[in-house]
Amino acid sequence: MYYFTNDYSEGAHPRILQALLDTNLQQVGGYGEDPFCLEAAELIKEKLGRSDVDVHFIPGGTQTNMIALAAFLRPHEAVIAPVTGHIEVHEAGAIEATGHKIIPLPGKDGKLRPEDVQEAVDFHLDEHMVKPRLVFISNATEIGSIYTKAELEALSAFCRRHNLLLYVDGARLGSALTSPANDLTLAEVAGLVDAFYIGGTKNGALIGEALVICSESLREDFRYHMKQRGALLAKGRLLGLQFRELFRDNLFFDLAQHANAMAAKLQQAMENLGCSFLLHSVSNQIFPILPNSVIAELRRDFSFLTWKKLDEERSIVRMVASWSCPEEAVDQFIARLTELLS
Amino acid sequence: MYYFTNDYSEGAHPRILQALLDTNLQQVGGYGEDPFCLEAAELIKEKLGRSDVDVHFIPGGTQTNMIALAAFLRPHEAVIAPVTGHIEVHEAGAIEATGHKIIPLPGKDGKLRPEDVQEAVDFHLDEHMVKPRLVFISNATEIGSIYTKAELEALSAFCRRHNLLLYVDGARLGSALTSPANDLTLAEVAGLVDAFYIGGTKNGALIGEALVICSESLREDFRYHMKQRGALLAKGRLLGLQFRELFRDNLFFDLAQHANAMAAKLQQAMENLGCSFLLHSVSNQIFPILPNSVIAELRRDFSFLTWKKLDEERSIVRMVASWSCPEEAVDQFIARLTELLS
Amino acid sequence: MYYFTNDYSEGAHPRILQALLDTNLQQVGGYGEDPFCLEAAELIKEKLGRSDVDVHFIPGGTQTNMIALAAFLRPHEAVIAPVTGHIEVHEAGAIEATGHKIIPLPGKDGKLRPEDVQEAVDFHLDEHMVKPRLVFISNATEIGSIYTKAELEALSAFCRRHNLLLYVDGARLGSALTSPANDLTLAEVAGLVDAFYIGGTKNGALIGEALVICSESLREDFRYHMKQRGALLAKGRLLGLQFRELFRDNLFFDLAQHANAMAAKLQQAMENLGCSFLLHSVSNQIFPILPNSVIAELRRDFSFLTWKKLDEERSIVRMVASWSCPEEAVDQFIARLTELLS
Amino acid sequence: MYYFTNDYSEGAHPRILQALLDTNLQQVGGYGEDPFCLEAAELIKEKLGRSDVDVHFIPGGTQTNMIALAAFLRPHEAVIAPVTGHIEVHEAGAIEATGHKIIPLPGKDGKLRPEDVQEAVDFHLDEHMVKPRLVFISNATEIGSIYTKAELEALSAFCRRHNLLLYVDGARLGSALTSPANDLTLAEVAGLVDAFYIGGTKNGALIGEALVICSESLREDFRYHMKQRGALLAKGRLLGLQFRELFRDNLFFDLAQHANAMAAKLQQAMENLGCSFLLHSVSNQIFPILPNSVIAELRRDFSFLTWKKLDEERSIVRMVASWSCPEEAVDQFIARLTELLS
Repeated sequence: MYYFTNDYSEGAHPRILQALLDTNLQQVGGYGEDPFCLEAAELIKEKLGRSDVDVHFIPGGTQTNMIALAAFLRPHEAVIAPVTGHIEVHEAGAIEATGHKIIPLPGKDGKLRPEDVQEAVDFHLDEHMVKPRLVFISNATEIGSIYTKAELEALSAFCRRHNLLLYVDGARLGSALTSPANDLTLAEVAGLVDAFYIGGTKNGALIGEALVICSESLREDFRYHMKQRGALLAKGRLLGLQFRELFRDNLFFDLAQHANAMAAKLQQAMENLGCSFLLHSVSNQIFPILPNSVIAELRRDFSFLTWKKLDEERSIVRMVASWSCPEEAVDQFIARLTELLS
Repeated sequence: MYYFTNDYSEGAHPRILQALLDTNLQQVGGYGEDPFCLEAAELIKEKLGRSDVDVHFIPGGTQTNMIALAAFLRPHEAVIAPVTGHIEVHEAGAIEATGHKIIPLPGKDGKLRPEDVQEAVDFHLDEHMVKPRLVFISNATEIGSIYTKAELEALSAFCRRHNLLLYVDGARLGSALTSPANDLTLAEVAGLVDAFYIGGTKNGALIGEALVICSESLREDFRYHMKQRGALLAKGRLLGLQFRELFRDNLFFDLAQHANAMAAKLQQAMENLGCSFLLHSVSNQIFPILPNSVIAELRRDFSFLTWKKLDEERSIVRMVASWSCPEEAVDQFIARLTELLS
Repeated sequence: MYYFTNDYSEGAHPRILQALLDTNLQQVGGYGEDPFCLEAAELIKEKLGRSDVDVHFIPGGTQTNMIALAAFLRPHEAVIAPVTGHIEVHEAGAIEATGHKIIPLPGKDGKLRPEDVQEAVDFHLDEHMVKPRLVFISNATEIGSIYTKAELEALSAFCRRHNLLLYVDGARLGSALTSPANDLTLAEVAGLVDAFYIGGTKNGALIGEALVICSESLREDFRYHMKQRGALLAKGRLLGLQFRELFRDNLFFDLAQHANAMAAKLQQAMENLGCSFLLHSVSNQIFPILPNSVIAELRRDFSFLTWKKLDEERSIVRMVASWSCPEEAVDQFIARLTELLS
Repeated sequence: MYYFTNDYSEGAHPRILQALLDTNLQQVGGYGEDPFCLEAAELIKEKLGRSDVDVHFIPGGTQTNMIALAAFLRPHEAVIAPVTGHIEVHEAGAIEATGHKIIPLPGKDGKLRPEDVQEAVDFHLDEHMVKPRLVFISNATEIGSIYTKAELEALSAFCRRHNLLLYVDGARLGSALTSPANDLTLAEVAGLVDAFYIGGTKNGALIGEALVICSESLREDFRYHMKQRGALLAKGRLLGLQFRELFRDNLFFDLAQHANAMAAKLQQAMENLGCSFLLHSVSNQIFPILPNSVIAELRRDFSFLTWKKLDEERSIVRMVASWSCPEEAVDQFIARLTELLS
């Protein structure tokens, strides 16, 4: 049985475990002020080519979104997000639990365009309604698409004109930036947004996301918010060590590229077999449409998620290739599907 | 330089790292529903001798307190805690951020007695004030004392009579239960309280606390609260694996006992040298009173916390012995202090 | 200039002011425990024909919704509401500020049907999402429609089957229950829902809504929630006196019926003049579609709200007839519109 | 039976009721944007001698405190207040329900001094604790004392040096500013603090407090916060009309002065009879110590609050003189007490 269910089914890249072993009894300070966290933050700043950002390491993605948004917003300010956005659907109301409304917009292919946001801004006229203040997007999106440089530039310019903050959930930022369709660099992302996070958990770490706060006005006292929401780990070293390992060379991007390549190989093979898709994915998640009978057969050897029933006979499934996905698993899946569809 | 600063300066017990290595590429389900978490929960239930409790693994202690209390209380209900309680002082207002007032009581030696709680109950008369609903205690306390069986029984009986929930922060529960002054078992604690947590982070784990919910009325939907507050880790395996290792034999208690023994050796030696203390500690934290000049000298080779200035010449310091504290470090400290005080 | 802008442009019915005068220097207890509040609650219970409900008087509608929902829900529980619902659009995020997500549904004509709610229930599968727990509806709705007995019964039965609470915002409940299209009694409403409020502010009171909690499980400690959200007025007598006056005979319903009659006369006349409408209203708010040029002319003598631009030439406007609307104002409006459209 | 229980046992000053009658059918805009509110705000600004403040009318005191503090603070920021402060004791956790911790300080005679606040500032060192940001005081205090000009200046200077906001709960500000012991003007209060409110409910209004925001940085978007917490009354005219009446001449201060005079007469007479007091009050609340047997006798004709049992035989009671307290009631009380104590 091989799991294409998600990109967090395995542990961590072996280099990360080795780093834990190598430093295990070294005594260091707690709560993210250890030398590993400091070094990891420096490595990320180097990759960004700037030192005027703050980098914080936080255990998980929902936690990162919640802390950042709660820290950045005043009580009456709201978040604009696509209906498919992780915060809108899959965080059990975490943002609302900190007091803020999410204004969901249909968007297009999981993405928001300036015209989408314009509509929300126009609708919210006075103090009887919330005040839209932050635009939340994901890159890669929750359905496998990514933002081009032109798209992110347009959205960023719009937000700045309208005094809106722009925030990127980068749970799969590695996958986005190493996509064949990508034309953005990590430094360019940082230049266009107010804050974003670099996802570790879904790209080879055991745990951990690196939040990068780009705008100076958002930086003050941020560690208070982390502590208050339970994200300052006593052994913060666990987070720092992993990001140090991922960013001291190209490991972070290499892992993402591998995941993308495996997903692309799966998608290409399925296209060759005549499958259609929810959308053409350019990242490590693909959404093929398959007959239910074929799905049932495939499940004997492979695990994956049914995304949505399409009609009585077919469903959209989600398959995710991880940083550690062996090419043999991909090949076996293709072989099996070829048999089933022939 | 040796750190007696706290019990989370090192990584994890080697057996824990080995378990991570051994299972690393095993694909398992996410969010705490993997076999490691399930097995760890079973092991803990066995130690408790009962199956009618729920066990949840949560990354950190502040997070555990916050999620549990927010899940257990209605908006108008308040928490009674000692002034020294972790939630009152060192969680950056995490409990209040979920909407609940903490009623701080002086207590005695870091502990609450029925008569303390009675006073708070008597004071809160009607709907113009909050309604006290949950009593928060720590065992071991934040200043090194522990609850005896008689004390916990009395407090438990009081709470039940007054319809108050009783919750134990067990960040250092291992230390409490292996203290020479202890007469409580883990199973007895579970029988006397509504919920408590077993601290991993301060007892040899990299990260993680095991929340045990004993009262049936508090169990429903608890995973929703974990998700909403950002505590459902995608790779929940990281938490399960550690507790499986700590509880598949006596490792959890062995580690705590070692820490206690090292702290006791330090305390005894200092008593012999004529030192006095904030209080006589029976756990792995000790609070000696030392001349500032001696403290300055000791700091050349040892790190520890200044707890409080006592007067112009002396301070109370906090020294913590960890699960991994080498006896040589203890001996060296004693030797150096002997020199300085002679 | 006459205002058809809303139903709260004037003060209070003269009998209410007289009651304030008559009792002004009578010394009574504070915070809603005065004899006027008690008597008003009794009068409402009599109208409902039952004594097993709690009645609380609260200054405003947004406040009533916020307090009730925050008191009734646990942190992970969400509210289902129509997209046009007052809490979703016009309460500045008050519900989210208490920590709860609203799940907006399109519904039909401002109302929710069992099939709408079913969809939301089906979508929310596990603890990664919020848990739908309360269905919020308004009667009359924000766009002038009302629930028939069959509709409310169907929704109520569905909610009970699915363990969902049913709550009615009755800011314009008087208008709904005196509508010619209505077949529900106040007592029947109380029998079908878990809680609802009877709007005073929009039906002749200076201020005040009467929240009726029907389900026993929701009643405990409710005054704590009122106090915590700032709704226990020191001079609660102000609220009690008004509801005593409205309910000691048929005044409450008489005022609503007058408002309905005036709105119906306006709507009928406009139909006769060939106008179309957002929908056929059966309550005291109507939504005619008018040419922008006509609107501009009408504004010289009458005030009303532009609800929405329809196209370049026409807009939907909202006109509200109040409890005190003089029939002459209605006649003058009709005369002027007749001129303009002829 | 005469009530000395509090200063909100009666309705409103007759001039206020007359103003309601005189304007009743005048149609005006809703939500505090009517001409009465605008005029009342202007009158208050005139009394303050400055136009660079914002004035908002809010139904009640708990609501005013909650909205102001929640609007002014970021999530990790805390409020410093005296242990006797209304927000700490008698608001059912309203401040905490908006997410903020209150740091209670003993203070002196219900007041805070710079040295009290200094201690709290010194204690809160880093992000493991909340960040003190706002100092809450009441004038008059909850136990009848008032701030002198020198005291308020010292506190204000301290707060500015330490980047702390200073906020005054003025539920009984009228009483404070007309006290014989007072040397502060309303304008001076405004110059020394960041925001304060002028209490109407306890000084002759039916309902309503006037919040004055003095610091420019706190003004933006304030009406959003009022709406979100349920304080924007549809018929905001009710609040504006009352403050217009209280401030269009000296009525507000005349009423307070009368209340003070009646309380002073009671206190003086009791002193003459040999009574002792919790403290010497200079406002409209007095706290005499009386034998329980005498209290029981007095209760046949007078209502007042038992503040606290002092010992087995004596209690501290609270007596409040209101704006409408007839001198005959005072004389009767004195006569009866004279009989009982002789």
